[in-house]
Amino acid sequence: MKPLIGIAGNILLDHDAMNGFPITYTPQGFVKGVQQANAIPVVFPISDPHESKEYMSKVDGLLLAGGQDVSPLLFGEEPSLKLGATYPARDAFEIALVKEALHQAKPIFAVCRGLQLLNVAYGGTLYQDVSDYPALAVQHIQLTHFETGAHTITIDPDSTIGKIFGDQYVVNTYHHQAIKNLADPFKAVAWSTDGLVEAFEAKSSSQSIVAVQWHPELMLSHDVMMQRLFTDFVKRVIKKMT
Amino acid sequence: MKPLIGIAGNILLDHDAMNGFPITYTPQGFVKGVQQANAIPVVFPISDPHESKEYMSKVDGLLLAGGQDVSPLLFGEEPSLKLGATYPARDAFEIALVKEALHQAKPIFAVCRGLQLLNVAYGGTLYQDVSDYPALAVQHIQLTHFETGAHTITIDPDSTIGKIFGDQYVVNTYHHQAIKNLADPFKAVAWSTDGLVEAFEAKSSSQSIVAVQWHPELMLSHDVMMQRLFTDFVKRVIKKMT
Amino acid sequence: MKPLIGIAGNILLDHDAMNGFPITYTPQGFVKGVQQANAIPVVFPISDPHESKEYMSKVDGLLLAGGQDVSPLLFGEEPSLKLGATYPARDAFEIALVKEALHQAKPIFAVCRGLQLLNVAYGGTLYQDVSDYPALAVQHIQLTHFETGAHTITIDPDSTIGKIFGDQYVVNTYHHQAIKNLADPFKAVAWSTDGLVEAFEAKSSSQSIVAVQWHPELMLSHDVMMQRLFTDFVKRVIKKMT
Amino acid sequence: MKPLIGIAGNILLDHDAMNGFPITYTPQGFVKGVQQANAIPVVFPISDPHESKEYMSKVDGLLLAGGQDVSPLLFGEEPSLKLGATYPARDAFEIALVKEALHQAKPIFAVCRGLQLLNVAYGGTLYQDVSDYPALAVQHIQLTHFETGAHTITIDPDSTIGKIFGDQYVVNTYHHQAIKNLADPFKAVAWSTDGLVEAFEAKSSSQSIVAVQWHPELMLSHDVMMQRLFTDFVKRVIKKMT
Amino acid sequence: MKPLIGIAGNILLDHDAMNGFPITYTPQGFVKGVQQANAIPVVFPISDPHESKEYMSKVDGLLLAGGQDVSPLLFGEEPSLKLGATYPARDAFEIALVKEALHQAKPIFAVCRGLQLLNVAYGGTLYQDVSDYPALAVQHIQLTHFETGAHTITIDPDSTIGKIFGDQYVVNTYHHQAIKNLADPFKAVAWSTDGLVEAFEAKSSSQSIVAVQWHPELMLSHDVMMQRLFTDFVKRVIKKMT
Amino acid sequence: MKPLIGIAGNILLDHDAMNGFPITYTPQGFVKGVQQANAIPVVFPISDPHESKEYMSKVDGLLLAGGQDVSPLLFGEEPSLKLGATYPARDAFEIALVKEALHQAKPIFAVCRGLQLLNVAYGGTLYQDVSDYPALAVQHIQLTHFETGAHTITIDPDSTIGKIFGDQYVVNTYHHQAIKNLADPFKAVAWSTDGLVEAFEAKSSSQSIVAVQWHPELMLSHDVMMQRLFTDFVKRVIKKMT
Amino acid sequence: MKPLIGIAGNILLDHDAMNGFPITYTPQGFVKGVQQANAIPVVFPISDPHESKEYMSKVDGLLLAGGQDVSPLLFGEEPSLKLGATYPARDAFEIALVKEALHQAKPIFAVCRGLQLLNVAYGGTLYQDVSDYPALAVQHIQLTHFETGAHTITIDPDSTIGKIFGDQYVVNTYHHQAIKNLADPFKAVAWSTDGLVEAFEAKSSSQSIVAVQWHPELMLSHDVMMQRLFTDFVKRVIKKMT
Amino acid sequence: MKPLIGIAGNILLDHDAMNGFPITYTPQGFVKGVQQANAIPVVFPISDPHESKEYMSKVDGLLLAGGQDVSPLLFGEEPSLKLGATYPARDAFEIALVKEALHQAKPIFAVCRGLQLLNVAYGGTLYQDVSDYPALAVQHIQLTHFETGAHTITIDPDSTIGKIFGDQYVVNTYHHQAIKNLADPFKAVAWSTDGLVEAFEAKSSSQSIVAVQWHPELMLSHDVMMQRLFTDFVKRVIKKMT
Repeated sequence: MKPLIGIAGNILLDHDAMNGFPITYTPQGFVKGVQQANAIPVVFPISDPHESKEYMSKVDGLLLAGGQDVSPLLFGEEPSLKLGATYPARDAFEIALVKEALHQAKPIFAVCRGLQLLNVAYGGTLYQDVSDYPALAVQHIQLTHFETGAHTITIDPDSTIGKIFGDQYVVNTYHHQAIKNLADPFKAVAWSTDGLVEAFEAKSSSQSIVAVQWHPELMLSHDVMMQRLFTDFVKRVIKKMT
Repeated sequence: MKPLIGIAGNILLDHDAMNGFPITYTPQGFVKGVQQANAIPVVFPISDPHESKEYMSKVDGLLLAGGQDVSPLLFGEEPSLKLGATYPARDAFEIALVKEALHQAKPIFAVCRGLQLLNVAYGGTLYQDVSDYPALAVQHIQLTHFETGAHTITIDPDSTIGKIFGDQYVVNTYHHQAIKNLADPFKAVAWSTDGLVEAFEAKSSSQSIVAVQWHPELMLSHDVMMQRLFTDFVKRVIKKMT
Repeated sequence: MKPLIGIAGNILLDHDAMNGFPITYTPQGFVKGVQQANAIPVVFPISDPHESKEYMSKVDGLLLAGGQDVSPLLFGEEPSLKLGATYPARDAFEIALVKEALHQAKPIFAVCRGLQLLNVAYGGTLYQDVSDYPALAVQHIQLTHFETGAHTITIDPDSTIGKIFGDQYVVNTYHHQAIKNLADPFKAVAWSTDGLVEAFEAKSSSQSIVAVQWHPELMLSHDVMMQRLFTDFVKRVIKKMT
Repeated sequence: MKPLIGIAGNILLDHDAMNGFPITYTPQGFVKGVQQANAIPVVFPISDPHESKEYMSKVDGLLLAGGQDVSPLLFGEEPSLKLGATYPARDAFEIALVKEALHQAKPIFAVCRGLQLLNVAYGGTLYQDVSDYPALAVQHIQLTHFETGAHTITIDPDSTIGKIFGDQYVVNTYHHQAIKNLADPFKAVAWSTDGLVEAFEAKSSSQSIVAVQWHPELMLSHDVMMQRLFTDFVKRVIKKMT
Repeated sequence: MKPLIGIAGNILLDHDAMNGFPITYTPQGFVKGVQQANAIPVVFPISDPHESKEYMSKVDGLLLAGGQDVSPLLFGEEPSLKLGATYPARDAFEIALVKEALHQAKPIFAVCRGLQLLNVAYGGTLYQDVSDYPALAVQHIQLTHFETGAHTITIDPDSTIGKIFGDQYVVNTYHHQAIKNLADPFKAVAWSTDGLVEAFEAKSSSQSIVAVQWHPELMLSHDVMMQRLFTDFVKRVIKKMT
Repeated sequence: MKPLIGIAGNILLDHDAMNGFPITYTPQGFVKGVQQANAIPVVFPISDPHESKEYMSKVDGLLLAGGQDVSPLLFGEEPSLKLGATYPARDAFEIALVKEALHQAKPIFAVCRGLQLLNVAYGGTLYQDVSDYPALAVQHIQLTHFETGAHTITIDPDSTIGKIFGDQYVVNTYHHQAIKNLADPFKAVAWSTDGLVEAFEAKSSSQSIVAVQWHPELMLSHDVMMQRLFTDFVKRVIKKMT
Repeated sequence: MKPLIGIAGNILLDHDAMNGFPITYTPQGFVKGVQQANAIPVVFPISDPHESKEYMSKVDGLLLAGGQDVSPLLFGEEPSLKLGATYPARDAFEIALVKEALHQAKPIFAVCRGLQLLNVAYGGTLYQDVSDYPALAVQHIQLTHFETGAHTITIDPDSTIGKIFGDQYVVNTYHHQAIKNLADPFKAVAWSTDGLVEAFEAKSSSQSIVAVQWHPELMLSHDVMMQRLFTDFVKRVIKKMT
Repeated sequence: MKPLIGIAGNILLDHDAMNGFPITYTPQGFVKGVQQANAIPVVFPISDPHESKEYMSKVDGLLLAGGQDVSPLLFGEEPSLKLGATYPARDAFEIALVKEALHQAKPIFAVCRGLQLLNVAYGGTLYQDVSDYPALAVQHIQLTHFETGAHTITIDPDSTIGKIFGDQYVVNTYHHQAIKNLADPFKAVAWSTDGLVEAFEAKSSSQSIVAVQWHPELMLSHDVMMQRLFTDFVKRVIKKMT
């Protein structure tokens, strides 16, 4: 039996693409990354947080995808001037999923907003916009085509990320929020050259969590290294299943 | 434990809504209809047909949603002049899901394209465009808002559909393909006034299948009767689970 | 005290103009025509038909404006292939208003869809699309700018319309439905050269009703004759008030 | 007899939605809020201020909706660099309606621009753009979906607003003008965390006025508390009628 | 003194290009053709026909440009189903200009709609749409780039046109109206291969008129022959001036 | 004989409105203002400056309309960062027209860009963008509808402008360039409240020049005072003709 | 030394993609197909036919890509009603290239329009639109995504095409012109089920020509068989080089 | 034999102009400039840098066109906040072409991005955005139509550029990157008035390189001087061929 991976889905409201009908969706890159790692993906529609236990009990691992800003009300701030669109119901469902995943000891792989959500779920805080970061010097929303890496990250070579990418790599970048204070259970393992956290992992070996700020799912067809993040995730899942 | 319903998802390619990134998605009405029937929905990305067994073994019922035309190559015809866009990979995955659902005796609820796909999967044929139907007299792609019923259907009062709606009802309508020859295992249970099949069910009581040509998921918030199709589906699922 | 004129309003759903928010609205030409006739206009939002008595008791006259197609289900037909968008809730509210207006002996002025609705309310029928009219020979949806008359009508010189316009006039034209059978209480008073009814009035002198198929409210600033339809309406209202 | 509520309408010029025809309109949320409070709404087209007495004498209460900026010429300033679009004819008509409402002792409920207009009508002043407010720290034009509250307000618990919402609530926010000096007859009853007035009421108990800066009409279907503002308004109207 | 050429201008209403402001305009190709023929162009705004005498007395020649359909009411027909947009005020002004030009013995050069208008001004009739022409066999609205000739015309070699182009040429084509009956004072001098009139001239040598159905002003930069039509026109003007 | 007014026209390149064909045009407000003042307008296409003598000798007065920025190279500056689009060929032709108009003692009326061009033609300078003006405090590109005045100007009551408008008026405003140093032959006669020149006239009584920074041609139908600027211009023209 | 392949390029005029600047271009699929066949592609801009000798002498093979309709004037017909856009200068240059390629005995691979152009260059004729083909029964412009084959072709198994694909295959389809009479030097080798020629080859073994009506370059990434057409072409080129 | 000029092409991804198909392209101005200089242009698709030797050995000169930003990673910087889109694969291929051109002693003509790429290829650096240049005072992205020169450059009269244009000229301008440190082998020969390098040439007479920052290819039809840059390039090529 292949492992079953739950991808926490998003909702698209009022868009022409669908004649104005809302849809539940997830970017295809996440689907493909999981499939190519020889696992079975299903998408979770945004649901009542009380369903999180049911959802997590059906799957073997949790993938947190990109999307809206995380609501600042969740880390004790009012919306500042450059906050983007938030979707509090998604925040609530994903925080419940994350807690349930930990409770059931199921591995997590988090991308971009996923990384930010995880940090907030465990008590961390965010810059509501990268321009709030005093040392900002690198472009974090690239205009270059999404399949192409744009800026350099330095990596802790002893981390899971480091074992895949070595101590330096060029990644793509599309985020306007960023980690301010990292939550206690996590350790940073990669940084942009202006000092923002680009990846973190669980400190405790009993938790299997990898979170990255860039978008590996958009680079799959142009950079084979990015698939390894998915393959590594599925390996971590299989290890916990046995 | 609530029943888990697999919704066979769709893919959106090349669309502005998502900056050109493809997505796996399903219309929110299907998600909502299942949730309001007190079941747990997950979305299946279009996958290799060989995964159909894994997918069906994880869920308790299968929902087939709307979307592209069914490829005429599947019922022995070349594309005629008014054929719409098809997506053969979806056809193949959903036919495999349908066969596996039957094999595992899991109930099916099919909507619009879902109805057409089911028919083709079991040997039926389609009009590639309603204008190929000689007796065509009713508008089958309504311009009226989707939440509003537009044309009348007559219903076999002894059918499952008939038990919900009685012997006549006004439904919405958005289809340009339609059933030509109904596949052997099915019996028609509703018709438009110009004679097209608007709903069918399994002849055999060992199979639990309901298929409708209209879009109940778009009328949920304006016509409470439409929720009953989802509630009935979940009841059928629970019955098979026990 | 000036007379108060109720304009039966319309609803606009899902449109960019309003960031997707629905609005209650009426074309400004109707507002202006009433104001320039020295009366006070208010717009009625589409409401429950049961509110029609309350609404009509507040005003002195009823103006029926243009808009969606009238639902063919109201005159015993299924939607034919070229039917446009309908809005059954508006049909129901306006039919109730019309009946209440008659009951309270309050004058009516009806334009385009208003003429069609009135006809259906009293048992008449419509061509769902002008192309269903066998003798069709004149363009009834003009491409010429709306302020400019496009085709000729011939007029019964003894009618109210005839007293304003004489026995022939050039009017604008934007309708794809048209009167098939005129309802019993009405008499036709103007026709296009291919024979479609372009205006009707109440046969009985106890009812004060004028209905036109063209759009006088769009020609107000370019053709002073068109204001006379509004001025005549307000005169009819004042006569009934005293 | 149900109370009749006059909603001061707006005008939309030159927009594609209507093929460039101007329309009189009001957002549907105001219509729905009044209807659900069991009152009868009519929309007032923007009219000559001299008609305000006629208009107010026909209705039992006045609802001031959102829309354009209030012209700074009305409070003694020239347009500053970030002023938005104004519509002086609407300002003039609504100021006349407000004065007439007070004269006839009819209750008022004001939303967003309505609150600003009321303040200016009684001698208050506005920030032409929130960026003119020195202590600005909160995002007042949210990117989050309009049905979702975005920032926190603190509320005087003894006020009408406070009796509905308690001493703190999360509301939506779409305004770029804001109150600078509050007019004398009013007292502030709610504030954003950066100190802007979010709601005010009449000081004198002989006047029945409630004004809010956020948009309750856009949250009706997602937050039942927002309907209470409309229900409270209709209660105030009924009290004055008797 | 160079000759002064009056170009009968057009009006553009409601267009985004000009933020919705109407403009008086003429295609630049007419301006350039006249300038390159060493004459001075001015554009006449559409005016009251009574101004035609004043206008024609100021200039030495009249150029009739392309544009809207000619109103069928002018040649005794009602609008048929495929009529395009008309602009009766332009028709009226140009007919007055044409008559005045003849009265003052000033040469005319007419292009596309100009040819049609001239024909109607002198009692000719038009096909309201080329599809009304029973022998239609050639595409008269080309999809090929406007600078490129698309179909062949045969030419009376003894005509003015024939002296420029010889007895056959390939011209561009953008017209959906066409000459049905040619007015008495004119003789056809060129035809498409399916028999429609592509150019005519005055029969009488006392009148200096050349009219073409294609658009030489759009081919100026790619086909030097087309400039000759303008140069010939200015030569005819100079001849009459002396 | 009515006076003939030359309106210096503009060119529109590459725009969808005209399928990408360039056109010579002028806003209709200028045409209408001249017509309503009982004069005859013609539009001058942008031409070689050497044609200016021919053009001015045909007409009795010159109207300079709005449009592009004036090239800073003409007043000795390089393009600064916020310069808008310029059209040097129009600058050159209009400067030649202006000089010829003076030489032939023909009156000028200049609007917006026309005012700026006149100033530069006589040695004045411009702010390339109003934000270059240190004392800027008023919004000079209004968002309010163009028919509505937005900011106040103070006026020299002894000037021609003052005789029309009195010493204060509210005008519309759409300019991002503005007068820096006024050319020697002119005197300022109106100012915005932040001190920019809003109108000037010729110092010498032998020259008949009025120039305004706002757009009277856009307010004609809503503010009868604006027509007086055109009527006054035609009066000045007639005076010089005799 | 790798073979050098000349791809006859196209021109794009007036398009937004390039701010209205024309470009010389070729679809990337042709570039990729050649590169993956281990040859070197260069793109020929449309040039004077006299340059064809220079161009062909620089390269080892010629690839004719898709694009505009071939002008019917080249095969003795006037444009019929459904002709698409043509580009005669491209036709002329490519016909010259084809003749030069034959003269220099250099292989040709032709796709879609390339096939049609080749046919016309050697005296064949075309249906200007597939609807002119009396036996039309298959959809030749698919709505299905371009990477997916849509209709079936039958193939002469002894042809070059047959050696690649066998005697039947499903290909994509985007053409509205089609071969009527095949030119003498060619033999048809594949047909759609309604009888249109889908591929042809040179009869004479001294000429190395393969031409297909479908678009293999759009299916490269989804159907490995399509690359074989390019690989076969390069093999044919290498054979001639030695 | 005419010289063959290789134009290093660009790629356009995901654009509507081409239904989302990528294309290899080059702006037509470069093609035309080369053709009018009596040479033969071919376009090089972006290729593996290893093909650069093959490509350069086929042609006699290299033209580097405009386009994307040069990646800052190539000159040791991370992307700064205003970096535009880059395309690293193009950078790599063009750097290889440049080096090969030098190795084979073939002349280069570089425009805009071409100038920047050349500078980086030889060790120079760039301002990632002109706003990073402290002395910035001139608008370097003009809004004025591209055919029209906008700002002044001063030129070393002894340079190749100087021999064409003299010591001062007005050029168009569309660049947001600019030269910071000029690479060692080059000498600046033209400057904007705020001091940015507008052209450079090779110091060594053994290298034949001219690079300009503006866009001569867009001014060809309006300024005959610009063709001379192409003609001079082809002369330099011919000189090296012999």
